[in-house]
Amino acid sequence: MARLEILGIVGSLRAGSYNRMALQAAQELMPDGATLSLAELHGIPVFNQENEHDPPAAVVEFKERVLAADGILFGTPEYNYSVPGVLKNAIDWGTRPPGSNVWQGKPAAIMGASIGNLGSARAQYHLRQILVALNMPVVIQPEVMIANAAQRFDPDGRLSDEPTRQRIASLLDTLLRLIRVTSKEYTS
Amino acid sequence: MARLEILGIVGSLRAGSYNRMALQAAQELMPDGATLSLAELHGIPVFNQENEHDPPAAVVEFKERVLAADGILFGTPEYNYSVPGVLKNAIDWGTRPPGSNVWQGKPAAIMGASIGNLGSARAQYHLRQILVALNMPVVIQPEVMIANAAQRFDPDGRLSDEPTRQRIASLLDTLLRLIRVTSKEYTS
Amino acid sequence: MARLEILGIVGSLRAGSYNRMALQAAQELMPDGATLSLAELHGIPVFNQENEHDPPAAVVEFKERVLAADGILFGTPEYNYSVPGVLKNAIDWGTRPPGSNVWQGKPAAIMGASIGNLGSARAQYHLRQILVALNMPVVIQPEVMIANAAQRFDPDGRLSDEPTRQRIASLLDTLLRLIRVTSKEYTS
Amino acid sequence: MARLEILGIVGSLRAGSYNRMALQAAQELMPDGATLSLAELHGIPVFNQENEHDPPAAVVEFKERVLAADGILFGTPEYNYSVPGVLKNAIDWGTRPPGSNVWQGKPAAIMGASIGNLGSARAQYHLRQILVALNMPVVIQPEVMIANAAQRFDPDGRLSDEPTRQRIASLLDTLLRLIRVTSKEYTS
Repeated sequence: MARLEILGIVGSLRAGSYNRMALQAAQELMPDGATLSLAELHGIPVFNQENEHDPPAAVVEFKERVLAADGILFGTPEYNYSVPGVLKNAIDWGTRPPGSNVWQGKPAAIMGASIGNLGSARAQYHLRQILVALNMPVVIQPEVMIANAAQRFDPDGRLSDEPTRQRIASLLDTLLRLIRVTSKEYTS
Repeated sequence: MARLEILGIVGSLRAGSYNRMALQAAQELMPDGATLSLAELHGIPVFNQENEHDPPAAVVEFKERVLAADGILFGTPEYNYSVPGVLKNAIDWGTRPPGSNVWQGKPAAIMGASIGNLGSARAQYHLRQILVALNMPVVIQPEVMIANAAQRFDPDGRLSDEPTRQRIASLLDTLLRLIRVTSKEYTS
Repeated sequence: MARLEILGIVGSLRAGSYNRMALQAAQELMPDGATLSLAELHGIPVFNQENEHDPPAAVVEFKERVLAADGILFGTPEYNYSVPGVLKNAIDWGTRPPGSNVWQGKPAAIMGASIGNLGSARAQYHLRQILVALNMPVVIQPEVMIANAAQRFDPDGRLSDEPTRQRIASLLDTLLRLIRVTSKEYTS
Repeated sequence: MARLEILGIVGSLRAGSYNRMALQAAQELMPDGATLSLAELHGIPVFNQENEHDPPAAVVEFKERVLAADGILFGTPEYNYSVPGVLKNAIDWGTRPPGSNVWQGKPAAIMGASIGNLGSARAQYHLRQILVALNMPVVIQPEVMIANAAQRFDPDGRLSDEPTRQRIASLLDTLLRLIRVTSKEYTS
């Protein structure tokens, strides 16, 4: 079986982002046969349809990385009960010309961390609705909502909460299976 | 009664935005005793918590205009079944230091236009959930969803659809009443 | 000022419902000048438009109690990430003939309890969207989400968690103010 | 390949329900190799956890039919901006003892009709969130939202709108492929 390349999208620009740390944990936990590389959203400006036909280099590179990936792993914080503007903005760029919607048909999984009790739940359900627009098959369960994130990472930024690590491992496993059956669907 | 100052937020950067045109119609339709000025989101960069304590001038000015307003009128397109990243990003800036959440307690109304059949409905319900986080009292009905927007504006960008104009007038009237009772609530 | 009559809707039929217990706590916590009585949903059958013009007595009585109330306090469990069918069904009856929508313009507040970590959050956001259809002004904050409910009530069913009691008291206070300004809006 | 048995759930009890008519159109349009039978919700009482261990015959039969099906096709009206209480109530029964969640892992597709402009869109997005709780893989696109339903069926109740028929055919085709890959996922 070909090696699968997963792209992890870091939904926050913040240096100390728990969502980046959670995606780094996912890199360690990725099963053999797949690799997770991370896409940062720095340098992607706010979307303006006026400029879409001559997008900045950061946007071009971001869209190419999405297109090249076998699957997408979103790591989303929750800002104001929804997806961060910065993440939604990157998603919006991906659906615009030149070229068609880069997210089209790409299998996806969602995880998210927040310092509060809900673990980004509200952002994740909004993101699930957005994925319908993007036409992305998405892992249903397990859901990975890392609540009270400040208590689940050690001072070096390593995810130290064992149940959360296991949930992420299960999410990754399910994502890989989703990618494999989705690709069968289109090729066989 | 003091003159009310409403701030209309243009949720798209696009020059030919139907949402800007709809807000311009709202300027014409605003009842006596109130003024609607428009806030454009150009120049507001993507939010990065690293830089929030030294925000760019466009962000500072945007937050000051929100703080000074008696009420807010959102004009939201729908991008990918939700609020545009560019609008969500501006909302996110408004909740961050320096200073407290500028949206706090500010009465709001929502309208939106789209070229499809749903008239930005999906974006509007996401925005309503976001307003719970922001703690903004919001007009419940009428809802103003301008579907098939390309057919409702004339070549000069004037909203020519009479039922839509009446709905906007009713929305504005309800917003002004909401502002007046909300202000009584806190002052009497 | 006239005494206010609030109707609390118990969103579950279960004898040991934490939501009923939470509403009973709200009865104790109700400020002077207002009374909270509880509406149970037992005996309200599933809605069938065929029979709506000759509704069963339990439906007639339920609609009359909603109509007579100055405000509504929903106590909603979360079943399968949304409002319980039994509660949604009672809401649906209230919008149907004979007579018009009994919920129309009625100020509302929402609280909910669940044994999980999210405290009925997902049900509450669905309910907020439903209230837009019903045209009910609703308290924005505080939100009362009673997570891990099994730990917050004593063996006699009394809400023993002091922070939750204070949140409910604050919700009730805000609901009474919402009722008073809403009534000013329409009468002055 | 084994013949696939799809269960269509009629989300309204009404005799003249457009959603039943749409499901009947789906019966005609079902590709060879699969059959669509319809489940009516008449006789399923409101859920009460007190009685769940001794459910009425209509509930037992409903749960057995769901369990026996290879996939589920929901036909949902929109009541008050969400799933009808009557449909949510049947879904709730299916997740309760005796036995485990009957919906678990069952591939699903969603369609809906309404007399308004939104074609049950708001109900469908709520239903999609509910399906996450149920752990049902669901068709992402096409979405089938039959707006202005009164104009799309002839006097005999036949779906006469050709584009809608084609959309339903495409939905069915996608559902069958989803069932086949989901079953491969678990068996190969």
